[in-house]
Formats: sequence, structure tokens, C-alpha cells
Amino acid sequence: MNGTLYGLGVGPGDPELITLKSWRILSMAEVVAYPVAPSGTTRARDVAGHFIPEDVIELPLGIPFGADGTETASAYDGAAMEIATHLEAGRNVAFLCMGDPLFHGSFSYLMDRLADRHAVEVVPGVTAPMSCAAVLRRPLARREGILKVLPATADAERLRREVAAGPATLVFIKAGGHIPALRRLLEDADLLGAAYVVENAGGETQRLLPMEEAGEASPYFSTVMVFAGEAA
Amino acid sequence: MNGTLYGLGVGPGDPELITLKSWRILSMAEVVAYPVAPSGTTRARDVAGHFIPEDVIELPLGIPFGADGTETASAYDGAAMEIATHLEAGRNVAFLCMGDPLFHGSFSYLMDRLADRHAVEVVPGVTAPMSCAAVLRRPLARREGILKVLPATADAERLRREVAAGPATLVFIKAGGHIPALRRLLEDADLLGAAYVVENAGGETQRLLPMEEAGEASPYFSTVMVFAGEAA
Repeated sequence: MNGTLYGLGVGPGDPELITLKSWRILSMAEVVAYPVAPSGTTRARDVAGHFIPEDVIELPLGIPFGADGTETASAYDGAAMEIATHLEAGRNVAFLCMGDPLFHGSFSYLMDRLADRHAVEVVPGVTAPMSCAAVLRRPLARREGILKVLPATADAERLRREVAAGPATLVFIKAGGHIPALRRLLEDADLLGAAYVVENAGGETQRLLPMEEAGEASPYFSTVMVFAGEAA
Repeated sequence: MNGTLYGLGVGPGDPELITLKSWRILSMAEVVAYPVAPSGTTRARDVAGHFIPEDVIELPLGIPFGADGTETASAYDGAAMEIATHLEAGRNVAFLCMGDPLFHGSFSYLMDRLADRHAVEVVPGVTAPMSCAAVLRRPLARREGILKVLPATADAERLRREVAAGPATLVFIKAGGHIPALRRLLEDADLLGAAYVVENAGGETQRLLPMEEAGEASPYFSTVMVFAGEAA
């Protein structure tokens, strides 16, 4: 019998923000796979490391994650083939995903390649917008409030249109390197005073600051939260 | 010394989708509070019930939740006073929240009333959009993809503008009772074929169906997922 591929959300960075379900499946997995960034960092493995069984097969996969826009199909093809080899040998594979498996990560590209021939199960996780709201202790949305999660890497004109559409909580992800552009955008919309930068949310190097005090550079995994909803 | 108020996300419905952190804090709490809907249902308590210690003080709070738009300030005032009494007696209070504490729930109204005089800590949780994407096994967003979470109860013209703004994954929450209006909205935007209704996501009565096959009525806690992003 073939194995099952599990996409396990491990949450935003604090190992305690993993769910009981991801923890249970991880603790019984035969193969634990995770993305390795070009820089060599393995964020999802770092978060869930405590919970990986000792005698497991580890499968580090060189995937240009953190660079969603430039990933090459061949890297995913190769990673999917490595995973398929284990599934076909009857081994369950747990693939670790920062945050949630289907929200801005590499898992969906593997699912694209494997779901037609293999059993796939997805375990959702806590994402950065919720984690950032928790550390700032500000409501994300309530009543008729709208929440938008906008990659800072998206088309500038589209972002401008989304900001202008009306009151909403705006979460700009992948904001590192885009702080100056976001500052101009929010300044023009008179929203700079409602904006906060959260660097490395949930991690040990987490840092919060009002956007008005933020410098020009921030780590790639920075999030800009703009509390401009009707409840703000 | 005064106690701490913890807002604990318990996730979208499956008890296993609670985080290790919420589980740990809940298992050590002296007082466990939770909203009781006018109908008498206690959804958050039902989800986390397994993890509530036996000798704890339970504090059911009559809060018109599930009716964000019509909640009365006095219900929250009364609930906050009940919680404050325990905090001032030095007891920690864990307030259970469906999904995430700061995302469309009653906790933020209690935080408004208590955070200036009491220690408050928020533990984020897995929310319905992520849970629904997981059961449908469809990517919520990737690359430059935008995600919008739109209460179906919001102004119809505003919803129309959000749908028309360009490709995005659209998640309509609080959709029960609004299915016919959403169907018209999505039909006009030629998006009906990309839409799914998820009833009671994560719960035992969960039901998935393409919007084209959905009836006119759905439970209040229904979610309509529209996969109309660039990655769809």
C-alpha cells in the first residue's frame, strides 16, 4: 500500500503554535521532508525540530521558497519525485510548512504534482497575520470588517487600488525590501499612522515597530499590519 | 497579584486543531470562560471540552456572539465585570475563542474593556479560511496572490467592488442566510463556477459542495470559498 503525503502547518515561528494534529502526525511520520532555502536555512524544520522523532528519515528538499516568483518548475519536479519514491515504498511523508500549507508556501506546488496519484492530507496552521495581530493585541477584523492579505511583491497599481477600496485591515506579507514603497503607498492614503512593521513574527528575533519609525530595510519575512478597518 | 486574561484560539472546530500553547494554558487555567450564544450553544467550549481540567471554575458568558452587528455594549460590560472579579482575586482566566481570538469573535470587545487595567495575552489560532482550503485541498494564495476575507453581512456595494477589483481568493464568512445574494454577486462576476460552500467547517457536520449545487439556506457558520486568484 502506498504512503500518504501530509502537508503539516507548523505555525508562524513559535514551536508551541503547532497544532495537536500536526504534532501527532509528525511524531508518527516515517519520512519528514522540508524545504531548504538557497541560503541553506530550514525555517519550518527549525520550528518543528523538537517534535521530529529520532529514527525518522529526513528529506531536505532544495526548493527556492521565499522566492515564490522565481521558483523553477524543475526544482519542484525533482522534490516531488523524491517524495513519490518514499510514498511508493509505502512510507508516509510529513512535509513541514511554515504557517499554513496552502497559504503562500511551497506545499501547493508539490500537491499539484502528487495529488492525482497519491493520497494527500492537509493540516492547516496558524498564519502570520493572526500571529502579528496577537503580538500587537489589535483586532484583525470584527462585525463587517474586511481583511486583505496582500503580497508586497504584487503589482503596485493593484496594491494602490486595494488600499483605496475602503476601510479594511491590510496585511502586507513578504514586505522585506518593499518598506520604502509601502511607506509611500500608505502615506498617500493617509494610513501611515495606522501601520506597524513586524519583523520575524513569532520567532526569537521578533521585532515590532510603528511604520513611522521603521528604517528602509527589513528581513524578507516582515509583515506590515495596517489597522484601517471600521473597528480600528 | 492580579491574574492574567488569556484569549485562547481553539481553532475552526476539530479539537485536534488547537495549538500546543492554547492546550497548555487551558490545562493550567483556574477559570475557563466562554461565550454562550442566545440559542444556548457554546461552540468554543464544545471544541475544547476535552482539555478543560476537572476542578476548574467554569464561567459561561451570555454574549450575543454570532450576531456581531447587534451585540449590546451592556452584555460585554457585564461579561468584562465577571472576568475582572476573577482577575482581581488573582485567578488566571482562559477565554475560549473559536478560530482566532482577534479575528471576528467576541474576545476583542472584552479586550477593549479589560486591557488597560489587566494583563492580557492572546494565543492565535487556526481560522476557517485555512481550514476550508485544507478540506478542499485548494491553494488559498501563492506568489503575488491576494486573499480577501469578506463578511457576507457587509455592505452589498462594497462587496461588489471587492469582487470586481481583480483576481483574488475570496472567502465569504458568516455566509448563512446570504447564499442567494452571494450567488447573484458571483454570477454577475462570472465566478460561480469557482465557488464552494463549506458548512460547519471542521465540525462533525461539515459539508462541502460546489456553490452551483448549494440550496438557498445554509447554517450561519457557512463559508463560501471562491478560487479566483491568478494561481487558480
